Amino acid sequence: MKIAIIFGAVSYEHEISIVSAIAMKSLLKGEIVYIFCDSNREFYHIPTAQIKSKLFSSGDYKKSPKLTLKNGGFYQKSLMKEKRVDFDFALNLSHGADGEDGKIASLLEFFEIPFIGPRVDASVMSFNKLFTKLYAKSLGVEVVDFEVLKKGAYKISIDYPVIIKPLRLGSSIGVSIVRDADALEYALDVAYEFDDEVLVEPFIEGVKEYNLAGLKADEYIFSIVEEPQKETFLDFDKKYLDFSRTSQVQKADIDSYLEENLKLAFQKVYGRLFEGALIRCDFFVVEGKVILNEINPIPGSMANYLFTDFNDAIKRLSQTLPQSKKISIDYQYIHSIQKAKGK
Amino acid sequence: MKIAIIFGAVSYEHEISIVSAIAMKSLLKGEIVYIFCDSNREFYHIPTAQIKSKLFSSGDYKKSPKLTLKNGGFYQKSLMKEKRVDFDFALNLSHGADGEDGKIASLLEFFEIPFIGPRVDASVMSFNKLFTKLYAKSLGVEVVDFEVLKKGAYKISIDYPVIIKPLRLGSSIGVSIVRDADALEYALDVAYEFDDEVLVEPFIEGVKEYNLAGLKADEYIFSIVEEPQKETFLDFDKKYLDFSRTSQVQKADIDSYLEENLKLAFQKVYGRLFEGALIRCDFFVVEGKVILNEINPIPGSMANYLFTDFNDAIKRLSQTLPQSKKISIDYQYIHSIQKAKGK
Repeated sequence: MKIAIIFGAVSYEHEISIVSAIAMKSLLKGEIVYIFCDSNREFYHIPTAQIKSKLFSSGDYKKSPKLTLKNGGFYQKSLMKEKRVDFDFALNLSHGADGEDGKIASLLEFFEIPFIGPRVDASVMSFNKLFTKLYAKSLGVEVVDFEVLKKGAYKISIDYPVIIKPLRLGSSIGVSIVRDADALEYALDVAYEFDDEVLVEPFIEGVKEYNLAGLKADEYIFSIVEEPQKETFLDFDKKYLDFSRTSQVQKADIDSYLEENLKLAFQKVYGRLFEGALIRCDFFVVEGKVILNEINPIPGSMANYLFTDFNDAIKRLSQTLPQSKKISIDYQYIHSIQKAKGK
Repeated sequence: MKIAIIFGAVSYEHEISIVSAIAMKSLLKGEIVYIFCDSNREFYHIPTAQIKSKLFSSGDYKKSPKLTLKNGGFYQKSLMKEKRVDFDFALNLSHGADGEDGKIASLLEFFEIPFIGPRVDASVMSFNKLFTKLYAKSLGVEVVDFEVLKKGAYKISIDYPVIIKPLRLGSSIGVSIVRDADALEYALDVAYEFDDEVLVEPFIEGVKEYNLAGLKADEYIFSIVEEPQKETFLDFDKKYLDFSRTSQVQKADIDSYLEENLKLAFQKVYGRLFEGALIRCDFFVVEGKVILNEINPIPGSMANYLFTDFNDAIKRLSQTLPQSKKISIDYQYIHSIQKAKGK
């Protein structure tokens, strides 16, 4: 299989997307075609042999061939002609904005490029933390209590300690834990730097946390359940480790009943919406109750370290990607108007 | 002002998008640049003087210059160079899929083309009727009761008569009113032709219906309230009239209290999400209670016939389009990793 990895793009996670993309080189069997989206939203075809972080930070990637997006794929100019970059399917590895907010998904859907990753609707529903909650609740999946504040608002009704998050960032940027009223205004101002709307949730001290990744191919394929290493919460630097991780982690020590419940909640969330994507759901467990914390629709380095056979999972997913409905346009309608007018 | 109208695209409403676009010619003051997306998702620059429905149904539009989408706009080849098509802002007039499901919004947002129309998140939330309901309810706006069925399901729990709609089409296609159990299976099969998920709602006989269009510029600008002509419901052919309508309609005969309540509900729905768009909300009123029926984020011919000064509304909207946050990418993070490695 020949996989095009699409990475970079304009987001606060541009750099960790590069790290994630590089990690794929040692993980994926088969040929990789690297397609980089730079900070000007121009696409470049990066030779796989050259891929390393310095290529991007130095700006040397600009020596690589530029690509144009058109129906059917990415095109590269060669002399007088344009040639389509050859690959079997794309893997959207652009974390954060652009990649996870529905924009790159839309480009790929619109131009009919088969890809692994959330579609435009799944992206919007997971990128906006309010929408995630509304959606999960509608499926009978429990979520952490919350309220949404709009820029300029500084009053909360949830008891301290609380956790403050920009409503629409796919990372830990702008997130704070607030233990008392004195620290609230500053934390909100930090979050408002990144979004006009902010999510407030109770911060549950010492809560049990479990991550489960998976996908739906011909059947559901689940990763092991991980109990992430406990820090107060993962800040940006610590999160980096997740994006370059390539060795498998230990399975969480939980009973099969809880594992089943985590998988059930995962399947409810995944449903039809996330078809085509490998996602990671982060759950809390409080008194045996499974609570959805977040959906990560393009997890760092595709959460490869959670899968027993990552390559097989990707391969099977690539063979069962959702097809968009064919709509035939026959101008029957305009013909009938013209006929009526011609009378 | 120089306005690029983007129309056509791959949807069941491709043809009425053409009708809508043609209607703009006599409505908009200022120069129009017509950008047509054909059934292969290729873009063409249609000379304004040539615009008429036959150009498209005959395939003659293919003689017009082809365009490529890149950062900053649509580009047209001329001899050896590429030239950007010049306009001040775009108006997304692609009804239905592509235009209203977030794909074209994403293209325009990604390539930083200023435009009137719903952004990607607003598109997804209004295109999927379940998401619309969850969102409206979260804002305290009442919605019609509902249930969602997945392909293969034929049992409903709502009392007859019911109205059956594909979950994700922005038109009346695939919609049926079902008065008893005998007619249910056929109606569901029709709807399942268009979507794997179907919305079931009680059909409220003789319900009062009111449409209100509007937008947020420096302030909210509202249209008059219209009481749409009552048919059992508008089918595709009757709906056509809406898309070519260019003369103003009569204001509904309602008291100022109800009008205020309709505007309040509209503003709640519009909020931050629909900034940049001119939308039409279709409401039901039952015993004085305002209930959101549907959001039309790109109404037929932009609901021009509801505005007292349509041109002014468009102009003011174009001057207050939402700006996306600037994200600077400085490779500080990768630089720091490289430094650490170099030690």
